[in-house]
This record gives sequence, C-alpha cells and structure tokens, in this order.
Amino acid sequence: MLIIDMVRKINAMTGFTHAAGVEVTIAEQGLVEMTLEKKPELLQFNGFFHGGVIAGLADHAAGAAATTSLPPGKIAVTIDLHINYLAPAKGPLLVAKAQCVQTGSTICVVSVALSSVADQQATPCAMATVTLRVVDMPPLA
Amino acid sequence: MLIIDMVRKINAMTGFTHAAGVEVTIAEQGLVEMTLEKKPELLQFNGFFHGGVIAGLADHAAGAAATTSLPPGKIAVTIDLHINYLAPAKGPLLVAKAQCVQTGSTICVVSVALSSVADQQATPCAMATVTLRVVDMPPLA
Amino acid sequence: MLIIDMVRKINAMTGFTHAAGVEVTIAEQGLVEMTLEKKPELLQFNGFFHGGVIAGLADHAAGAAATTSLPPGKIAVTIDLHINYLAPAKGPLLVAKAQCVQTGSTICVVSVALSSVADQQATPCAMATVTLRVVDMPPLA
Amino acid sequence: MLIIDMVRKINAMTGFTHAAGVEVTIAEQGLVEMTLEKKPELLQFNGFFHGGVIAGLADHAAGAAATTSLPPGKIAVTIDLHINYLAPAKGPLLVAKAQCVQTGSTICVVSVALSSVADQQATPCAMATVTLRVVDMPPLA
Repeated sequence: MLIIDMVRKINAMTGFTHAAGVEVTIAEQGLVEMTLEKKPELLQFNGFFHGGVIAGLADHAAGAAATTSLPPGKIAVTIDLHINYLAPAKGPLLVAKAQCVQTGSTICVVSVALSSVADQQATPCAMATVTLRVVDMPPLA
Repeated sequence: MLIIDMVRKINAMTGFTHAAGVEVTIAEQGLVEMTLEKKPELLQFNGFFHGGVIAGLADHAAGAAATTSLPPGKIAVTIDLHINYLAPAKGPLLVAKAQCVQTGSTICVVSVALSSVADQQATPCAMATVTLRVVDMPPLA
Repeated sequence: MLIIDMVRKINAMTGFTHAAGVEVTIAEQGLVEMTLEKKPELLQFNGFFHGGVIAGLADHAAGAAATTSLPPGKIAVTIDLHINYLAPAKGPLLVAKAQCVQTGSTICVVSVALSSVADQQATPCAMATVTLRVVDMPPLA
Repeated sequence: MLIIDMVRKINAMTGFTHAAGVEVTIAEQGLVEMTLEKKPELLQFNGFFHGGVIAGLADHAAGAAATTSLPPGKIAVTIDLHINYLAPAKGPLLVAKAQCVQTGSTICVVSVALSSVADQQATPCAMATVTLRVVDMPPLA
C-alpha cells in the first residue's frame, strides 16, 4: 500500500477526522500535510477555528507523519503535545504540515507548522511539537 | 450574570463545543468542569476519544476557568497548551476539571485534569497545562 | 540500598547537581524533594534564581522521582520537559517537589512543584511536567 | 550600543551564564547563538551535558533572541519553556541557536535548536520552544 493510501485509510476510519472533513494532501516518509475547511462545528465563538480543533489537527498530522517513518506494522501514538498559538486562524482553510524531527525505535518527535489560508495567502497560526511512542499497529479492519 | 451562566452562554455560542455536545457541570471562580459524551465524530479509529478532542476540551475548559477568575469584561485566550496523555479514554464520558493556578493581569496558568468515566469510575486519561493571555472580552451578541 | 541513599549517590555523582549544591531532602517511592541554596553562579542578572537553573532542578528531581518508582536496575531519562514560571524565585532557597503521576514500563510522567522559600514562607515560583523514558541503569561506579 | 554588545553585557552580568562560561557567538535582531564548553559542573553522571544545563542554555538564548527583536528599553522574560531531548549531548561543545518566531507587543515565541559539537560535526541534541512576556528593562548597572 502506498504511504498516502495508508494515511488516507486511517484518516477515513477515524471518526474525528472523517466528520471534521480532514483531507490528506501530502504523505511521504516523515512528512504529512493535511487540510481542514471551515465549518460551524469547528469554530470558536468569534468565528475563527477553535484552538482545540487546531490542536486536534496538529495531533493527527503528527501521528501520521511519525507513522510514515516507521517500519510496516508499527504506528505512533501521542505521548504529549505542546502547541503555541501565533495568530487567530481567520481564513477559510487550515493547513497542518507535520515533519518528523526524530524517528527512534521507541520515541518519535514531530514538528507541526499550522497556517490559516485566505485568498491563497498562508499565515502561520500555530506551531506544535508532538512526542510519540511506537507501538504495534492494530489490524485496520 | 452568574458565572455558570456566562460559561454556558459562551459554550453554547461556540460552534466546536456546541456541536461536540460539551456540558458545563461546574463553574466557580477559577474552577470549571466540563463533560463530553462519546459520539462517533469525537473518536480515534480504535473507538476511544481522539487525542485532539481531549486537547480541545482541555483548551476550552482552561479558557473558561481562567475567564471566571478575571474581572468582568476580560477574557483569557490560549497562548500555549501542553498535554500529556496518560491512558486511552475508553469510557463513554470524558470529564475535564480545570483549575486556575495563577491569575495575573496579563497571564493566567491553568491545570486541567482529564478523566475517562465508565461505570461511575473515573480514570485519569490526560493532564494539561494551559497558558493564557488576558484580553478585553468582545461583545457577546 | 535505601531509596534516599540511591538518590543521594546519583546526586553526588552528577557534576551539575554536586557543583550547584543540590540537597536531597525527601526520597520515597515516586516522590522526591530537593533543595538548592542561592549562590552567585545560579542567578539571573536581577539576583533571582535563573530560570534555567530552576528548569535544571525540576529535571533532576523528576528523574529521581521517576527512578524511585521503577524496579531495581532501571532508570528514567527525560524525553521532554515543560515548565511554567509563576513568580520570580527571590528567596534564598529553591525547593522542588517531584511526584510521579504515571509509571509505565516504557514512559513515566512526573509533576514538579517549585517554590521559593524566604523566612520559612514558601511561594510557588514554577511548575513543570516531565516525560521520561525507562532505560537500563548503567553501572554506578 | 550594538545588539551583540548588549547581549554580551547581560550575559556577563548574569551569574549563571557567566559562571558556566556561556559565549555569545551571534546576536542579530531576532537571532542569537550561544555556546558552552564542557566542564565537570555542567554534566550528568554519565559525563554528558546535563539536561538541566541544556534547558538553561535554551532559556537564556531564547531570552536574548526575543530581547534583540524588541524596541530599546524592553526585555523578554520567560513565561514557559518546552524542551525535547533528541540525543545525548556527548561532545565537548554545546551550541544553542535561538530564532524568534513571533514578536508581539506582549508575547514573543522563540524556537531554539541545540546541538552537540564534536570534531567539527554538529549533532542535534535538543529543541525547545520558549514563550516570553515583554516587560520594561530594568537599569543595567
């Protein structure tokens, strides 16, 4: 299975990302990009993307980026996540670019850059560092 | 307006928490508890609450706890959030208890304990520290 | 060997904590308290304890607290550390109290409360969450 | 005063960095590099740089990088620091490169890349994200 097909398969099987409408735009070894379009159920009361949704997308993209860098049969699950919010995510599209910084046999570390896109202009809105643990992948039914 | 009424009003106005079904169970000065019932769109592919949703609830509860400790007309917005996942959130109910550790004129720090509840047994599933900035509250239409 | 003796032995063997003058005041299973007296080489330019030294004490105390909760022959090494500074550490004594929140076979999580003590009054000055990995203890010569 | 002179002046006035032997190798607007040579009092019991010392250098370099991006008379003080350890810092030299990611009127965010250098080869050993608050600079005596 191609890397991007595996990432899309997990994305589609995951209630949160499927319902939110997360799209997988890039998935290579150690690098994943995902996008999310604005919808009412993803917003803060001021109409911008909710910080929790931004953290959620960062977490999901990080898990995917780490997993693509692991041997087949292994998956990375988040131990801890640290996210800094840099600017309100005002635009209609949220983009998360997750890049593996370290892939170990037990621990992975992933950096995630998050941008708000409006009128084809990307503005950084958050950055996250995610620490993950390598475990055996459960069967994907 | 009572503290709990203000927290519920913001919760209801917020697309993310309203759609997810977040309930405000406690809201006192500096202390807020929120709960979230399991639904397909909140889950990881293994059927547990998605880590991103847990982070989202932690963020929202922290913002509320900080805001209740501020003078009227002020609101706290997240600067950064750090969350450690301790165990899978397997139960049908997720509970976040957010307690202000520090309330300053510029910065607030909130600790959030997250539990998974099943058969009236609460199991810690995550813990978060959220750092927030104090800003003027926009008009709540 | 008693837990406190092991913690003191490692503390004495460690160049940083030995030179800084770290004292081990409590060491039980999963709980360690360490203190550090003010000295010029530990200070910020304003005469308070340097934030880096506070982070260093938090890291060391967390490693000890996690290690005391592990089976003999295992030691915990830091994967990542998150620290919030709450107030300047103005007093002559810095105290770190590290408590294990989770002890797993691979991962430990420790909460550290740091206080500045002056005139027998303790004021919280920082709080940290430290995530550690369990490894085999190297021989302590 | 040149930026590098100001950073060196504060570095020299600071007990911790002066005693440790921190050198300022680059200081431009929003970018600072500092180095630290191995000495017994900076080490872990295994002979590598202590994680606390690495966090301390990250904190100091971040504060300098943020301060260089602020208007004269302002200084940045750390609110919180998150550091991931990637590999043991085995080499004789530790290098921290701190780059401002965001400079606001109240909050700054700085990324710090830390490397261990041996035989002119740099190996990443840690990465940190530091969140700082802008305050008035006290008089530098």
